[in-house]
Amino acid sequence: MKQQHISDAVIRRLPRYYRYLDELHSRGVERISSSTLGKRMGVTASQIRQDLSCFGEFGQHGYGYNIMELRAEIGAILGVGAPRRLIIIGAGHLGHALLQNFDFVQGGFQLDTAFDIAPELIGTQINGVAIRSMDELDAYFDAYHPAVAVLTVPKSAAQEIANRLVALGVRGLWNFTNVELDAEDSVFVENVHFADSLLTLSYRIAKEPAVGGENA
Amino acid sequence: MKQQHISDAVIRRLPRYYRYLDELHSRGVERISSSTLGKRMGVTASQIRQDLSCFGEFGQHGYGYNIMELRAEIGAILGVGAPRRLIIIGAGHLGHALLQNFDFVQGGFQLDTAFDIAPELIGTQINGVAIRSMDELDAYFDAYHPAVAVLTVPKSAAQEIANRLVALGVRGLWNFTNVELDAEDSVFVENVHFADSLLTLSYRIAKEPAVGGENA
Repeated sequence: MKQQHISDAVIRRLPRYYRYLDELHSRGVERISSSTLGKRMGVTASQIRQDLSCFGEFGQHGYGYNIMELRAEIGAILGVGAPRRLIIIGAGHLGHALLQNFDFVQGGFQLDTAFDIAPELIGTQINGVAIRSMDELDAYFDAYHPAVAVLTVPKSAAQEIANRLVALGVRGLWNFTNVELDAEDSVFVENVHFADSLLTLSYRIAKEPAVGGENA
Repeated sequence: MKQQHISDAVIRRLPRYYRYLDELHSRGVERISSSTLGKRMGVTASQIRQDLSCFGEFGQHGYGYNIMELRAEIGAILGVGAPRRLIIIGAGHLGHALLQNFDFVQGGFQLDTAFDIAPELIGTQINGVAIRSMDELDAYFDAYHPAVAVLTVPKSAAQEIANRLVALGVRGLWNFTNVELDAEDSVFVENVHFADSLLTLSYRIAKEPAVGGENA
């Protein structure tokens, strides 16, 4: 019940807390105060305390948080402890970059395999992960029921492939295609919009040298 | 003065508004109400009105927003109208994917060139963009003063290259390396953290089948 009314904003902050606590933990740091954690995360200490109080009591007044404990709790909340099967659809440059460099285990998933339509890729491996033909997708779902599919396919193919994955029972789509996908409410779509990030940077830079008389 | 106290949350929402208005505009839609825009963006109509009021008066009661006007205004706020020079450091798989597929102009930038250290890449072109040697970086800055550098290099090289770019006068870093960069306050660092996005998806999926008696 405690986890009922957690706002999107809190959910968005948890991964950052987790990542930073993970880094501290691996450096051997044992405790952190809400104000230090807040400073690093760019939020106030009281925001930190409020966010974490959604999930229970992790801190002690005057002693700060036990990093190992807090990391484990947030990890459990984020589902990192019980990794789920994940597949990649599209082993082009972006798919390849994820296969090569991304730590899916830390993100709470086990990377099983990737699918593509390019004959020169099918049957090869990238970083030890097999690339299969899209023709094998249905049989693969029947056998392994992967929870999440990463969409790194061209825009033009995105919606059709998403429909197919939804029909096969996928529960989440990690969408890199920059297409706003239509999907049933039962499927979670998490979009990575590079464009929004770059526009934010553009805004900050454009705003800075406002020396002249812009329409302010 | 009007633009003085715009919160981070508003700035984060503007690119999404812009992207959606751009899509509507290209489909020939002329007006949209704050409630329709809000529904699509997952915020309330009053949130939309409040966000946009930070920048002036775009809507008319009962008539909604003029899409072309609003898009142009938000675009101007985001600095899209006056594209700045951008370079890519690292033409590996991720850099290649951006070179091949990403619309930098829509993000407010003009993609000039890319740099790498791999001899087999230097002197080639990807999607019409020349790949240069890192040895040419200083001379390039002297000549063209690019505003932004995209960092798609290995983690181990990230901080050193960032330092070099800052010393050369770069104003913004679009950081894909998953390293929390130390940079002077005068330089804007915009991070693309794939891991945070995937953890959010993990959370949503992990939370859903809470049929049993977890510690709630």
